[in-house]
Amino acid sequence: MERKSLNLLLILLLLILTNNYSYGDDGYRLWQRYDKVQDAEKLKNYQQSVSELVIEGNSPTLSVAQKELTVGLTGLLGKAVPVSQRLTQQSAVVAGTPANSALIASLNLAERLNSLGDEGYLILTANTNGKKSTVIAANTDIGVLYGSFHFLRLLQTQQSISNLSIASAPKIKHRVLNHWDNLDRTVERGYAGFSLWDWHKLPDYIDQRYIDYARANASIGINGTVLTNVNANALVLTKEYLVKVAALADAFRPYGLRVYLTARFSAPIELGGLKTADPLDPQVQAWWKDKTEEIYSYVPDFGGFLVKANSEGQPGPQNYGRNHADGANMLADAVAPRGGIVMWRAFVYDDKEPDDRAKQAYNEFKPLDGTFRKNVLVQVKNGAIDFQPREPFHPLFGAMPQTPIMMEFQITQEYLGQGTHLAYLSPLFKEVLTSDTYAKGKGSTVAKVIDGTLDNHTLTGIAGVSNIGNDRNWTGHQFGQANWYSFGRLAWDHTLSSEAIADEWLKMTFTNNNQFVAPVKNMMLGSHEALVNYMTPLGLHHIMGWSHHYGPGPWIKDKHRADWTSVYYHRADEEGIGFDRTATGSNAIAQYFPPVQKQFRVIKKCPEKYLLWFHHVKWNRKMDSGRILWDELCHRYSGGVDSVRQMQQTWNTVQGLIDQERFDQVQSFLKIQEKEAKWWRDACLLYFQTFSKRPIPQDLEKPAESLDYYMQLDPQFVPGI
Amino acid sequence: MERKSLNLLLILLLLILTNNYSYGDDGYRLWQRYDKVQDAEKLKNYQQSVSELVIEGNSPTLSVAQKELTVGLTGLLGKAVPVSQRLTQQSAVVAGTPANSALIASLNLAERLNSLGDEGYLILTANTNGKKSTVIAANTDIGVLYGSFHFLRLLQTQQSISNLSIASAPKIKHRVLNHWDNLDRTVERGYAGFSLWDWHKLPDYIDQRYIDYARANASIGINGTVLTNVNANALVLTKEYLVKVAALADAFRPYGLRVYLTARFSAPIELGGLKTADPLDPQVQAWWKDKTEEIYSYVPDFGGFLVKANSEGQPGPQNYGRNHADGANMLADAVAPRGGIVMWRAFVYDDKEPDDRAKQAYNEFKPLDGTFRKNVLVQVKNGAIDFQPREPFHPLFGAMPQTPIMMEFQITQEYLGQGTHLAYLSPLFKEVLTSDTYAKGKGSTVAKVIDGTLDNHTLTGIAGVSNIGNDRNWTGHQFGQANWYSFGRLAWDHTLSSEAIADEWLKMTFTNNNQFVAPVKNMMLGSHEALVNYMTPLGLHHIMGWSHHYGPGPWIKDKHRADWTSVYYHRADEEGIGFDRTATGSNAIAQYFPPVQKQFRVIKKCPEKYLLWFHHVKWNRKMDSGRILWDELCHRYSGGVDSVRQMQQTWNTVQGLIDQERFDQVQSFLKIQEKEAKWWRDACLLYFQTFSKRPIPQDLEKPAESLDYYMQLDPQFVPGI
Repeated sequence: MERKSLNLLLILLLLILTNNYSYGDDGYRLWQRYDKVQDAEKLKNYQQSVSELVIEGNSPTLSVAQKELTVGLTGLLGKAVPVSQRLTQQSAVVAGTPANSALIASLNLAERLNSLGDEGYLILTANTNGKKSTVIAANTDIGVLYGSFHFLRLLQTQQSISNLSIASAPKIKHRVLNHWDNLDRTVERGYAGFSLWDWHKLPDYIDQRYIDYARANASIGINGTVLTNVNANALVLTKEYLVKVAALADAFRPYGLRVYLTARFSAPIELGGLKTADPLDPQVQAWWKDKTEEIYSYVPDFGGFLVKANSEGQPGPQNYGRNHADGANMLADAVAPRGGIVMWRAFVYDDKEPDDRAKQAYNEFKPLDGTFRKNVLVQVKNGAIDFQPREPFHPLFGAMPQTPIMMEFQITQEYLGQGTHLAYLSPLFKEVLTSDTYAKGKGSTVAKVIDGTLDNHTLTGIAGVSNIGNDRNWTGHQFGQANWYSFGRLAWDHTLSSEAIADEWLKMTFTNNNQFVAPVKNMMLGSHEALVNYMTPLGLHHIMGWSHHYGPGPWIKDKHRADWTSVYYHRADEEGIGFDRTATGSNAIAQYFPPVQKQFRVIKKCPEKYLLWFHHVKWNRKMDSGRILWDELCHRYSGGVDSVRQMQQTWNTVQGLIDQERFDQVQSFLKIQEKEAKWWRDACLLYFQTFSKRPIPQDLEKPAESLDYYMQLDPQFVPGI
Repeated sequence: MERKSLNLLLILLLLILTNNYSYGDDGYRLWQRYDKVQDAEKLKNYQQSVSELVIEGNSPTLSVAQKELTVGLTGLLGKAVPVSQRLTQQSAVVAGTPANSALIASLNLAERLNSLGDEGYLILTANTNGKKSTVIAANTDIGVLYGSFHFLRLLQTQQSISNLSIASAPKIKHRVLNHWDNLDRTVERGYAGFSLWDWHKLPDYIDQRYIDYARANASIGINGTVLTNVNANALVLTKEYLVKVAALADAFRPYGLRVYLTARFSAPIELGGLKTADPLDPQVQAWWKDKTEEIYSYVPDFGGFLVKANSEGQPGPQNYGRNHADGANMLADAVAPRGGIVMWRAFVYDDKEPDDRAKQAYNEFKPLDGTFRKNVLVQVKNGAIDFQPREPFHPLFGAMPQTPIMMEFQITQEYLGQGTHLAYLSPLFKEVLTSDTYAKGKGSTVAKVIDGTLDNHTLTGIAGVSNIGNDRNWTGHQFGQANWYSFGRLAWDHTLSSEAIADEWLKMTFTNNNQFVAPVKNMMLGSHEALVNYMTPLGLHHIMGWSHHYGPGPWIKDKHRADWTSVYYHRADEEGIGFDRTATGSNAIAQYFPPVQKQFRVIKKCPEKYLLWFHHVKWNRKMDSGRILWDELCHRYSGGVDSVRQMQQTWNTVQGLIDQERFDQVQSFLKIQEKEAKWWRDACLLYFQTFSKRPIPQDLEKPAESLDYYMQLDPQFVPGI
């Protein structure tokens, strides 16, 4: 009886919270939850500070801002917030541009707005027509929308809105998601279900998710989206698909989200019937010009092309004896008249196997510096290999001062536990952004390279490979949302701290209750390091399972390309382990500026987190901890597993502070993560032990199975391929 | 200002209805919506009639029933309904079995319950311990759950609950969904996204959707689910997958939903390393027995196997010179000790091309009657070809009196407009079920064959190929839900009318408002006939696009099997059109009992809806309408398009009576349906016109494009393959 009564109470509570048959909370609303503010005092203050909403003008973007503010404020305040086109009372929220709003114009904000550009905004407590108001002002409608989201965030995170004086503008111009989505709705390296884009039903059916996707992106300042996989299918450039692309672009436009496409380099042959795709061939150039004009006829604000060429089997200019600049410039000329850009990826493969895969992009691109058109960005992955759990920054950053270099981060967790591991990536992003290239002396950070300040570029960009799919919560893992969120926030302002971003994301996504926020934030901040430890500690890299990249595979060898195998990268032998990239080895280190070389060159000075990236190190070498390398490796792997168990414990303490459905999902995923962390630890240690010939230290947990067991595992139908 | 105020009002209204940032209504809740009853008088009556809920006993299934009743009644009544294990007041709802509930036992319902079997239930207004109560009584817990859903349905459809005396039991024992879901989450002929089964995250992560899927099925009495595609992958029979299957079975069990698997006939070779899969080989038999025992060790209530053998490339007993009974019996022997069954499909293909594809199943299976084990059902598609928009009933119904024949309907709309056409399938199901086989004289309906009453079988079954995917609304099209619903309702009670099912589904899914229900029900009831008209009127069949089966393809010919082409089926020539299946042709008609033959044998008596199925008819033959065949064909195709336009008009009139999101989706889909109906009409008429050499009648809309245009259309990435 008592158990039943308790159940009933819980059910009723749920009903009150959701007002219908509750399936719990599925996470669809992301960080855009506008539930009533729970803190009574703050609620009262907010209610007093927001009496009405005044928006003059009615562009699609302003309508969107008005709707968002109305719905958001009504939800957060638990009271109706009337909308007006005239100011009628104290404590209004006034939003607009000087051009469209007499109220905003009357505030003489021109000087302050001038420095904020096309997308920045002010949020001010101001005296408007004799009435105290909160003003959201910008030079453009999209700036107003961005400011509106910022204002709502203040309330969602329960900050003061009493004496506001906020000015914000993005540090990087193009903040772009890369969707590796195929036209059949599979998503390469996608772990959140399948593609959002239901091409078959476009253009006639506009799924509400398209709108909500654009809303979410606008709320964090993402202003571009590449709809299609870099391993491109030319079909998307046909009329049949362009009308579908146009429908998506129309849905996204009010949210300031511009559409880009991937250009398959051989499209002139495949679609145009030409005999060549040589970028210097006039017919090929004409074909791309015509095709581009056709695209603009459907999508007047088409952003441009993202290209993967001469990499992993993709065609490119080198097929015709041309270089990457020749290819990029041809496309750049085609989009230039309409203000489009080309994002040309530096993730390239040579036909022949290199002595060190890490050196390839630098070798191919560095000599091309200065030869690209003004509307080309070279898009460089954060590290020189491929989105490993940890990589030192890519040597191309800072190495091409005459070329805008664009960052490519991976938000989807191809090598970071895929769909089920909680790994908060902001610390990874920040580690790269704050790395110092020394290109122009100390302080030449990667962030300054990509925000253009180091080399005075105004064309700047940052891309994130999307982790979004058609799973109801968008990202599969609830905490995958945090990576989408932090990518957007850092793209806007790379000086934000990982902690600040986690703090606001947690508050907006779950609750402001500090009993929840404090421990879970702590858990998030340590999660990336935990993953590095149980997967690839001490600078190890590229030792994952073949092809699907799921689980450990340090034994992978004898494939058609050595630089796709694990043994190529870890180089374990009886002596030691690690890739010598100093002068005694591949000398990849020489691609960095001398002060950076100096940091990495000598084993004893090299930070241990990069040790095996740059050095082949003896198993018995003493480490900072006083342990020998082998023992340290064992401790790192074991520590990674221990960290996951601590995450599980932390999570268990917050049960009841948030809804049960999301709690359960994260709890289940942490269980999977612990299982797979052990898998990584045991498989890697048993394998490396065949070289080190040393025992796993007594105080550490022993592997559950034999090496043979792990080597014969052959997971089928792994998502993301 | 006024427009904005109106917008605000609408937004606020939405907020009140949903109490959070509303994304509208996405259809996830299916027909299981428990929003407060809107009719004030009925609400008051219901509130007075339901004071508390008394459930004695606490099995998993009873807990589920209690939760459903609590949440459902609380939502519908807008007031808390306390749960008690003792009767404390008048107007209680008392649910349970005589075995577990003293209250139920005291009512002496044994006699009435006896006839209701393992799944039936009573819903009675009764005097319980001196108090007027509503009693939901059954012999089993699952019967109680079924009765609970029935009771909730009464309130959802605003029927009286004052003097209830309802007895209900299913007419068919096994009511099963067939999921053609592959292990990579693609769904063969699935048009609602991808597979619900996220195999990769099983068994650790139990998605809430699995529970909600089971709930939905239980609410309409579906008690079995085949998780995997009939084009089977043996991997699902490995330990790695069986633990995943077990996790799903555990989630489904409280809802009375039993799990089945498809058995790949060659699994003993592929998994077991045997040299043969010959069903008479003792090693093969032993392998299946061991495998079956292994399955039962994971899933103690495993239902059994569904097998597609010797069909469309699938291996089977004929590979070893054995027949279908040999194959089925081997598997039947393996599952028999545990009470399992084998559902052996009659959809078979011969290696050599038959003179008439329609005759094949009968030819192969009829001679096997009496040779199957007692726990084998032969699963027969509703018609002899393949789920065409309309087919006469399959001649195997009634032809194998010693064998339980199971119906296989297709709920997913492979040939019926796939993802976007509104086609309510209950009329199709009913047309087949009420067809008279005359196997034992007049009144020997197909329904009586499959419910076992004609030939005294107690083992009975009905299967529906699922239209469920991971789209948020489960079925892609909102109205696809009605087909899932009506399959379940008819599986339980095939005497229900299509109108009654549509009526209750609409009320539960959308609203009880008759301004909505009446016109939309009318639209649903005509929708299947509309589709037949714009796709395959007058008995035409199998003239769809190649392979993906999307859109028209009457010109398909010269493929490696003639019986996969369109020209094989329509046989249009300068004389006329249609497949002569009488004695002058393939004589497939001889497979029916004589009274049925008589109906179809002569052109002038044959119902026009089957005319071209059975006869090759001259273009200038006079039809019932007075028109010649060609003109009638043109009118039918055009009438189909007109019907869709009427559906669009009808739908437009109900805007505002339901939520905007579902309204918009259906409106968009109807637009696509109209576009594709025209495509079918124009392509088919232009093509058939090349034979008829006659003009399309003056008063009809002319084709928009040329025949060449339609023939060169080549849709890519069509869903469902």
